[in-house]
Amino acid sequence: MSVLIVGTVAFDTIETPWGRVERVVGGSATYSALAASFLVPVRVAGVVGEDFTDRHFEVFWRRGIETTGVARERGKTFFWAGRYGENPNERETLATELNVFENFTPRLPEDYRDSRHLFLANMAPEIQMSVLDSCVKARFSILDTMDFWIGGSREALEEAVRRVDCVLMNDGEARQFSRASSLAGAAERILGMGPRVVVIKKGEHGAEMFTKKSHSTVPAYPVGRLKDPTGAGDTFAGGLLGYVATAGRIGEGVLRKAMAVGTVLASFCVEEFGTGNFENIVESDIKGRLKYLRMASRVENVALKIRDNISLEDEERVIKTGL
Amino acid sequence: MSVLIVGTVAFDTIETPWGRVERVVGGSATYSALAASFLVPVRVAGVVGEDFTDRHFEVFWRRGIETTGVARERGKTFFWAGRYGENPNERETLATELNVFENFTPRLPEDYRDSRHLFLANMAPEIQMSVLDSCVKARFSILDTMDFWIGGSREALEEAVRRVDCVLMNDGEARQFSRASSLAGAAERILGMGPRVVVIKKGEHGAEMFTKKSHSTVPAYPVGRLKDPTGAGDTFAGGLLGYVATAGRIGEGVLRKAMAVGTVLASFCVEEFGTGNFENIVESDIKGRLKYLRMASRVENVALKIRDNISLEDEERVIKTGL
Repeated sequence: MSVLIVGTVAFDTIETPWGRVERVVGGSATYSALAASFLVPVRVAGVVGEDFTDRHFEVFWRRGIETTGVARERGKTFFWAGRYGENPNERETLATELNVFENFTPRLPEDYRDSRHLFLANMAPEIQMSVLDSCVKARFSILDTMDFWIGGSREALEEAVRRVDCVLMNDGEARQFSRASSLAGAAERILGMGPRVVVIKKGEHGAEMFTKKSHSTVPAYPVGRLKDPTGAGDTFAGGLLGYVATAGRIGEGVLRKAMAVGTVLASFCVEEFGTGNFENIVESDIKGRLKYLRMASRVENVALKIRDNISLEDEERVIKTGL
Repeated sequence: MSVLIVGTVAFDTIETPWGRVERVVGGSATYSALAASFLVPVRVAGVVGEDFTDRHFEVFWRRGIETTGVARERGKTFFWAGRYGENPNERETLATELNVFENFTPRLPEDYRDSRHLFLANMAPEIQMSVLDSCVKARFSILDTMDFWIGGSREALEEAVRRVDCVLMNDGEARQFSRASSLAGAAERILGMGPRVVVIKKGEHGAEMFTKKSHSTVPAYPVGRLKDPTGAGDTFAGGLLGYVATAGRIGEGVLRKAMAVGTVLASFCVEEFGTGNFENIVESDIKGRLKYLRMASRVENVALKIRDNISLEDEERVIKTGL
């Protein structure tokens, strides 16, 4: 029941009001693989350059993550630089250098192809579909995307969306892709295209999940010291997929729990720069935060007596007049 | 166990992408009183001008709301005009004419003064304190405010905050008032000043409640057709206070339920322009939405087995190299 994650392995330079790090290991595949590794064995496919050494691969290996599907090519590793302000939901991209990722075509090792659970992180929809072509035994696939593909490759993206089980977007992307103004409306349109689950990430406002029959919400875990939001969405996705992979049947109950697990793992991610905090996560912390979420979001059964037919009589209709 | 609400009674001209209404009855006291009236008897104190006729007062009287404390003065009624874009959390104020509200001093009728539950809607903190002075039997008081008072009357506002049981602000106001960057940090500082409850409104992202010992969240109810967000926050406050007033002891459980009731009433408010939808609310609708919220926000107990000590052996540390 190992999961397959395909996406970027990158070097990131990140600036936030709480500090700055240079060329740390990042990328969508990295964050999501680390998160999923707390739940199931993980395989990663991607590409790095000559500057990505065995020392950098240790980030994966220490968490038991298989990297046979990560090719090391001539050239430089994908590089991203960004800056966050006080509002963690808004970021400014300072540099995106695709480098070896520009010509990335995943050549999946033979033993990757029986993967049942897939995360197709944000990348060209054509690449996402090539992974779907290779993994014929997949029973749950999650697709992430971004404004760049929604604007520039809509047709291919729509085709990819039709082929996956779960679409993951942030709220702005969901509105842009669906051309609906409300999140519920956006989810309805995307569900109409084929996926059975739509998960909408709202950063510090948590996440919402829609299926044809249900809607659920999970709040973000309130971190005490947010340092670096980079990778939170991918960590959420990896945790979600990892939990789904541990379950037998994938019903609404499993998906709800998976949302909570993803939320909690993301809360650890943002407490340190880069992937730094994944080293510190222990079982009791995860369980503690899951319990916190359960308590904080509980809405109890309210017994109400609604007052009706309560119009005032004429003599009670009093206005004090200063006229 | 009737509640007392002190705030503005106004005429509003509202423009949203879904339509426009002119000079409809609005104001913080109006929305919050209508909401509370579904739960408990309500008394309102405020001021209107000569242009506010008995026909306009019908909005209150039809819901059994006592208006002895609303003075009709020479001059014009408070007027507000605003425009909303696609994002319901952002609005542009086109006009604010205080008119008779400029010299408002609440002169509470004698029989108002035994009120146990108070909502001090957004207005000058000095006026809010004068109401607290008059109502010596109050056992639960909620204070709302806005950036104008936080910036211009901080000292008086801090004094008022120290005297109430519950502070209600939106997320931006809470950050501005507390000078903390996270909501949890903001709530902690405000709780440190005296109130035992801080409720932070986040519009379409729901609300959060903090006490010294607890934190709870409630998502917004996902309305199908949002038409006009005006009054949603005050409706939430009125529903919250109304529910609290029906309860005996005011503990965390009661406050959580009160948040859910406020949320549901606010969801009806935004489905029509102005106060139009309050005419249509029936008990079964309220109960249906409360049930929906309970289901949507449920986070189940997750049984997890966390994988640890899973570092790969040397021979498994494979990188396919294209070099």
